Amino acid sequence: MATVSMKQDPAVLAARLTRAAATAAAADLDALLISPGSDLRYLLGAGGESHERLTCLVLPAAGAAAPPALVVPKLEEPGFADLPLADLGVEVVTWVDGQDPHALVADLLRRGGAAPARLAVADVMPALHTIPLRSALPGAEQVLAAPVLRELRMRKDAAEIEALRKAGAAIDRVHARMAEFLKPGRTEAEVGADISAAIRAEGHVEAAFVIVGSGPNGASPHHALSDRVIERGDVVVVDIGGPIPEGYNSDCTRTYAVGEPAQSDVRDTYAVLQAAQRAAVQAVRPGATAESIDAAAREPIAAAGFGEYFVHRTGHGIGLDVHEEPYIVGGNQLVLEPGMAFSVEPGIYQPGRWGARIEDIVVVTEDGVESVNNRPHELVVLPA
Amino acid sequence: MATVSMKQDPAVLAARLTRAAATAAAADLDALLISPGSDLRYLLGAGGESHERLTCLVLPAAGAAAPPALVVPKLEEPGFADLPLADLGVEVVTWVDGQDPHALVADLLRRGGAAPARLAVADVMPALHTIPLRSALPGAEQVLAAPVLRELRMRKDAAEIEALRKAGAAIDRVHARMAEFLKPGRTEAEVGADISAAIRAEGHVEAAFVIVGSGPNGASPHHALSDRVIERGDVVVVDIGGPIPEGYNSDCTRTYAVGEPAQSDVRDTYAVLQAAQRAAVQAVRPGATAESIDAAAREPIAAAGFGEYFVHRTGHGIGLDVHEEPYIVGGNQLVLEPGMAFSVEPGIYQPGRWGARIEDIVVVTEDGVESVNNRPHELVVLPA
Repeated sequence: MATVSMKQDPAVLAARLTRAAATAAAADLDALLISPGSDLRYLLGAGGESHERLTCLVLPAAGAAAPPALVVPKLEEPGFADLPLADLGVEVVTWVDGQDPHALVADLLRRGGAAPARLAVADVMPALHTIPLRSALPGAEQVLAAPVLRELRMRKDAAEIEALRKAGAAIDRVHARMAEFLKPGRTEAEVGADISAAIRAEGHVEAAFVIVGSGPNGASPHHALSDRVIERGDVVVVDIGGPIPEGYNSDCTRTYAVGEPAQSDVRDTYAVLQAAQRAAVQAVRPGATAESIDAAAREPIAAAGFGEYFVHRTGHGIGLDVHEEPYIVGGNQLVLEPGMAFSVEPGIYQPGRWGARIEDIVVVTEDGVESVNNRPHELVVLPA
Repeated sequence: MATVSMKQDPAVLAARLTRAAATAAAADLDALLISPGSDLRYLLGAGGESHERLTCLVLPAAGAAAPPALVVPKLEEPGFADLPLADLGVEVVTWVDGQDPHALVADLLRRGGAAPARLAVADVMPALHTIPLRSALPGAEQVLAAPVLRELRMRKDAAEIEALRKAGAAIDRVHARMAEFLKPGRTEAEVGADISAAIRAEGHVEAAFVIVGSGPNGASPHHALSDRVIERGDVVVVDIGGPIPEGYNSDCTRTYAVGEPAQSDVRDTYAVLQAAQRAAVQAVRPGATAESIDAAAREPIAAAGFGEYFVHRTGHGIGLDVHEEPYIVGGNQLVLEPGMAFSVEPGIYQPGRWGARIEDIVVVTEDGVESVNNRPHELVVLPA
């Protein structure tokens, strides 16, 4: 379902627009072109999705003569009526079927006089719009807006952190109910359908992803759901989440055993994973690098001989997107700052046998770390 | 939730790949670059979504030396394991975090010897991948793959039409239950939540969109849901749909009155709309143009003096996407052929007062038209 627009404090939005325009100018850009998605939600509180009709915020870099403009199909103008666009000084420019919205954007960008030389487009803008915009502005280099938006969105303010806490508590409540859903004799798909309903019932807008990786399927980190019947003794990875009405996402993984695990190596291997995840969370503080958190998770797993079974990065930022900056991965020397929020989710995957992962969303505080997920980290043995 | 991959008849997929490669060659393209979305589902039966890790089918045009290749993050390879890629001659090329997948695609495209000069990318490919691909292949012009894929996807085969019939019957069952949901004193959002659940219960994978436009909100064609409380006498536009497990979408609008309509002009205006929708459906046949169907809907509405209140095109194609070619709009001289499927959905919107729309999905047959939606077209007066 399309996300809806949200009323947000106009002062917060105004500050974001100003910072985005300034950051764009510093990056030698003429303007940002932001189509629907989490960047537009961040900057204007606007919902919606990109589709064949162009909606696009044209945000000139600081110092430009022209004001920001929201180009929107006439048909969809009412969906933006609740936004404080007038207060924000954002002009609304509508167009109707038969007009060329890409030419319209080009005209807006030429209002200052000179044609733009360098434009940044939102990461999510589909080729359906990126390519016609390039044709309409053949002299302008297109680059990604991500580096500009990342600088803003990566540092969450108090209201954003509160929304992440709320999302975390909501998904914790779903994990707390896992014994209702996860039982021997049921398929992953049946369990997943119940979990999806619980995700919504516990305060999410939708179940954005539901992974129930039972037995050997747990060894595939991005396995979703299958018709495999869960058996007594299975280890099951449950990785779930979605957006709450504020737009911010939950994402939490716990690993369950359906009765005592059938395989004798589960307990010891899981203990290694649990220690690694705890060590990585405890390493989070302002001044630490993203890659140092990855290393803190990876080293104990490697030391125990499971290095080759930890096949993905340790984490990803989260907010209006489930995956966003900062990525907690080797090579990322980003220095963590208060307000950054990301997952810490090492896993150990025994190909063809079983897998385990533990994931919390954490927020960097002034002097350390806060976890928004607070369910026990032990292997949870469910009745079977 | 991410769509899952589907097992499809390898012979059907092989024929589609061959036709796509031939159509690409005829369009003077070196290759198609197809990221996850309905084009990839059409060509390979593959599910998934585009995100920050690149998945991309590299499909060389007919006559190229290199075979097709599916570039996929190692992590996500298991999600493609059920596809008949070996039978189709599609090589799987995996990559891991730290590698540059865009350079990998460039290398694959240079295997034939010469660097490619003209590449078509899927409409849905996000700028996050389109722009790095351009940097990795600076000599290649990027164009949209839509004209190639459109030629294939616009003409549905028997299995696709059967899937559209199944989707149509499923959404008809939801409309048949509307008296359960739509009652005075409830908010649009409450009604929408019940409809969403019914859409899933009646056989859809998800409720892709739910519009409950009550009273004045019905005059905004793309209004979704609000906290407005539905009142006795309201006219309510209900436009709903989503994908069934086969991936094909439903989309059907009916207009309801909650008790006898409060406004005296509703009955007569609705009769104009109903006649216009019927006339447009009856105009559908092989050889008619898309714009002639639009005109057939528009003329009776204009003749009755409501032309300015019919503010959108008459329809859109439907299949793996809710909106796809052919668009039923003025200026589209496309000649309809058997197997084309689209909506016929005129509306009359009285700004600030009420609105009405009637929408069926129809399929062009050998000698006329078949509607996959078959609920009554009259204004449905619900108990209040």
